[in-house]
Amino acid sequence: MGRVTKRVPSTRVVVGDAGRGPAATATTRPDTLAVEEPLEIRVEGHSVSVTMRTPGDDFDLAIGYLLTEGMLAEAAQVRQAMHCLDEDESGSPTFNVVDISLAPGAVLDTSRAERSSYTSSACGVCGKTSIEAIRATSRYAVADDGARFDPAVVAGLPEALRTRQRVFDRTGGLHAAGLLTSAGEVLVVREDVGRHNAVDKVIGWAAREGRLPLSGHILVVSGRASFELTQKAVMAGIPMLVAVSAPSSLAVELASDAGLTLVGFARPPRMTVYAGGHRLGLA
Amino acid sequence: MGRVTKRVPSTRVVVGDAGRGPAATATTRPDTLAVEEPLEIRVEGHSVSVTMRTPGDDFDLAIGYLLTEGMLAEAAQVRQAMHCLDEDESGSPTFNVVDISLAPGAVLDTSRAERSSYTSSACGVCGKTSIEAIRATSRYAVADDGARFDPAVVAGLPEALRTRQRVFDRTGGLHAAGLLTSAGEVLVVREDVGRHNAVDKVIGWAAREGRLPLSGHILVVSGRASFELTQKAVMAGIPMLVAVSAPSSLAVELASDAGLTLVGFARPPRMTVYAGGHRLGLA
Repeated sequence: MGRVTKRVPSTRVVVGDAGRGPAATATTRPDTLAVEEPLEIRVEGHSVSVTMRTPGDDFDLAIGYLLTEGMLAEAAQVRQAMHCLDEDESGSPTFNVVDISLAPGAVLDTSRAERSSYTSSACGVCGKTSIEAIRATSRYAVADDGARFDPAVVAGLPEALRTRQRVFDRTGGLHAAGLLTSAGEVLVVREDVGRHNAVDKVIGWAAREGRLPLSGHILVVSGRASFELTQKAVMAGIPMLVAVSAPSSLAVELASDAGLTLVGFARPPRMTVYAGGHRLGLA
Repeated sequence: MGRVTKRVPSTRVVVGDAGRGPAATATTRPDTLAVEEPLEIRVEGHSVSVTMRTPGDDFDLAIGYLLTEGMLAEAAQVRQAMHCLDEDESGSPTFNVVDISLAPGAVLDTSRAERSSYTSSACGVCGKTSIEAIRATSRYAVADDGARFDPAVVAGLPEALRTRQRVFDRTGGLHAAGLLTSAGEVLVVREDVGRHNAVDKVIGWAAREGRLPLSGHILVVSGRASFELTQKAVMAGIPMLVAVSAPSSLAVELASDAGLTLVGFARPPRMTVYAGGHRLGLA
């Protein structure tokens, strides 16, 4: 669709030394930016969510979102995914709405979504520990999967992801998520202005390929590991999440609870293990 | 409240050279992480949103969120903000729910919020340009405010922000937003696991101080400039947004539409101007 990047006019400014030469020099030139557009996800014509995403792999994004939010249990519940051919003012299709139709008997579970957005009912997180209030229930248990990983392979994964970030190289503006085998083979990499979207696109791709649960696989993300990303890994049955940067406190808490291995600051030859070290041969 | 950072056990692993010495060495030690907890924002007892945030400045966050999402028009519509004294399983208060009560006559506008979350009505973004579909209406016009800024001051702002990021230094895991005067004086800096939360905390603080609209001020954010952050600036009447990293396509489009000055890649002595260059003396 050619909408992953966009050229815009920009002015590069270099500020001079005080008292020497001009105060600032300015050069006007086109710059390549990552595209951000809203995607409305509908199920059977009803709006479920609007996410700000980079266009592309929208069906994977929609299906990954519905699965990792616990609204659908499996990809087989999806009968069809299609773009609504809505048009903008100029009459061009926007491709910014995906409608998912469900297989016979499939039902959308919106109970958790309703809890975290505007509702007229009382409460959501009150009187619960924070994790139980917001945690979705995974149909896959990862705690005792027997998967083992080689530390040397794991420490090098962010570099493997980085070399596959084609759009980042041009824009400096995209997050990435990758799914890899235990041997470090890259199965799929997705880039997006939203890291959660990149993860949904990866998991949606795997779901549509019939690969869930993703036992024995590794999810690698650029940047930080939040609760949300950790939960998406758990929902897909992924036993290991590797982040280039720091995890949050709640990401570590969820990883420990769910039996996920969580690695942060993975920068060869170093990495820091926050949970599930047994899969890396650590005590 | 002492909950901005948390100490957790971690294992630092250094992978060895293949064939030389041990395959990996592991050292166990406590690590300091940024705390992430859910905050439920309620208005008059009704749940409006749950956001994953770093605890602290929760009233500013809630009020900033309600204002920048267009649900409230001004801080004077808030009569009182309080933490619900909800308790977790161990009987300790979680401080994870804020309830806002409204001043007489004030009404919460949830029309836009309903459009971007689960609804049973049809449509949101269909048949509109992406910006009109998701844009909130600001009560402040920034286009012709006459504000002018010195390029030398602006290029150096991210560094001023960086030196005030106290928690980032300890955890490597927090975003930051800062509000500055046109002379580069730092008024307030907030750190959070979510960049949008850091911006809401800054704008909520300014709103409670009676400083809105923030004409002549500058908002500086760590990382990238998204549509969402740009919209928050516009909603607060801020004429200039400066990001350390890249903007998205839609951030530039909104900035151009709204008359905001948008600067990216601000790394002294360089910066790139994407919109509103006239405020920096550029043609």
